Amino acid sequence: MARPALNKDTRLCISLASRPSNIGTRFHNYLYEQLGLDFIYKAFTTTDIAAAIGGVRALGIRGCSVSMPFKQDALALVDHVEKSARAINAVNTIVNDEGVLTAANTDYTAVQRLIAEHGLDPHAAVLIRGSGGMASAVATAFRDSGFHEGTIVARNADSGLELAERLGYEWRSEVGELRTPVIVNVTPIGMAGGPQEHEPAYGDDVIAAAQTVFDVVAVPSETPLIVAARSAGKRVITGAEVIALQAAEQFERYTGVRPSAEQVAEASAYSRA
Amino acid sequence: MARPALNKDTRLCISLASRPSNIGTRFHNYLYEQLGLDFIYKAFTTTDIAAAIGGVRALGIRGCSVSMPFKQDALALVDHVEKSARAINAVNTIVNDEGVLTAANTDYTAVQRLIAEHGLDPHAAVLIRGSGGMASAVATAFRDSGFHEGTIVARNADSGLELAERLGYEWRSEVGELRTPVIVNVTPIGMAGGPQEHEPAYGDDVIAAAQTVFDVVAVPSETPLIVAARSAGKRVITGAEVIALQAAEQFERYTGVRPSAEQVAEASAYSRA
Repeated sequence: MARPALNKDTRLCISLASRPSNIGTRFHNYLYEQLGLDFIYKAFTTTDIAAAIGGVRALGIRGCSVSMPFKQDALALVDHVEKSARAINAVNTIVNDEGVLTAANTDYTAVQRLIAEHGLDPHAAVLIRGSGGMASAVATAFRDSGFHEGTIVARNADSGLELAERLGYEWRSEVGELRTPVIVNVTPIGMAGGPQEHEPAYGDDVIAAAQTVFDVVAVPSETPLIVAARSAGKRVITGAEVIALQAAEQFERYTGVRPSAEQVAEASAYSRA
Repeated sequence: MARPALNKDTRLCISLASRPSNIGTRFHNYLYEQLGLDFIYKAFTTTDIAAAIGGVRALGIRGCSVSMPFKQDALALVDHVEKSARAINAVNTIVNDEGVLTAANTDYTAVQRLIAEHGLDPHAAVLIRGSGGMASAVATAFRDSGFHEGTIVARNADSGLELAERLGYEWRSEVGELRTPVIVNVTPIGMAGGPQEHEPAYGDDVIAAAQTVFDVVAVPSETPLIVAARSAGKRVITGAEVIALQAAEQFERYTGVRPSAEQVAEASAYSRA
């Protein structure tokens, strides 16, 4: 893949993470080329998030994707915080409009959009496994999409209870006998290379009782949970959908151009090749 | 011109100017491609030089070229100031070594190198016309190359006297009857598009009495002064040489690779096309 010569007016977008990967850099640059946009994107790391975001503002860097461990600290360093970031106290996207920085969280907005696109009924009870930062984004997106009956399943009582109480949900340490129409996994269970790579995040009977199975794990997107849910004939939502949608939302905020689902799929495949 | 795909390890170099041009962006990117270096270069502007240079440090931006009006302010924003920048109180090049910023002035070092390469005799008296920032760089480079007998010619008595006194040189407002073996122009006289575009910076009799004629004006490099000096059979040093040499020095500081004179000439031609 090649791109046209840079010039002084080429817009720069970046990412900030403690351990940058190549995925965002490849994803965004691929789409810039496909769409003929005069942008470049590059991953950065920093040991000084305040100065880095100050530099984004002062240099007119158009967009800045924020990963761990900077998602909370970034909140205090911008001018405006959208509801998506405020709701979960975590930023993953900063847009710079002539020195005015606006923070959002496209993980949250992507989950909200998937709930709507898949036609999930908010009157159904939802069971969400996990209590980390992404679990907070997912659970809050469910609550803000109208799901008022929910349970957080998390071994960690502190973070599990805190998240559940904030949303008006229940907390339990194990699924036990609970069965709900919507079940969601936001733990690393089923993630490639992890210690529970080959385990489904929910048992067969929990899957059997559900209508919709949503796994946020994206690598692989066909986790043991998703494979089991498909073979049980359930509606599934995969982590690959979350990643593609949040990336498309970021891309649109930075460039003003919404890539098609096909373009996003191509760019995702390229970015992981 | 195309370039390979960006990745997370691609190094970024930038420039900071109130009015960015495309020349540096095209020059450096051309050479990165010719030399197969995984770098990109892009011009930026800012209204907050402190935050911009803080961002250079925090983001690990490898190099930062500094133009007007930031050359003085940058001095206080770096960790180390090389003699080249301290001598003239102006920075045009910042190198970032893992968060440690070192400032230099490659205009000064380029003039010093041209004095040596052209074999100028430091026992000769030198006449320098101009008293702005670049005149300070040029005059100080002459003084530090061993030229102890010098005269600053400048209409502006304040800046002219100040520069002359700092270097132990004389000051005069007009050339008058003074004749020296080395004459240098560091004013806009002869610059394309300027009000004195068609005038030589020195009269024919001053040129006739000189051995070496040095014009810092680079656009065009064949100024009326250089044309007159060539036809009088004098040794000439052009502004194009200064620009090419200072750019090569900057390039080497950022990348560790010294481009050949031919590559620099090609890149210069490309950058102005």
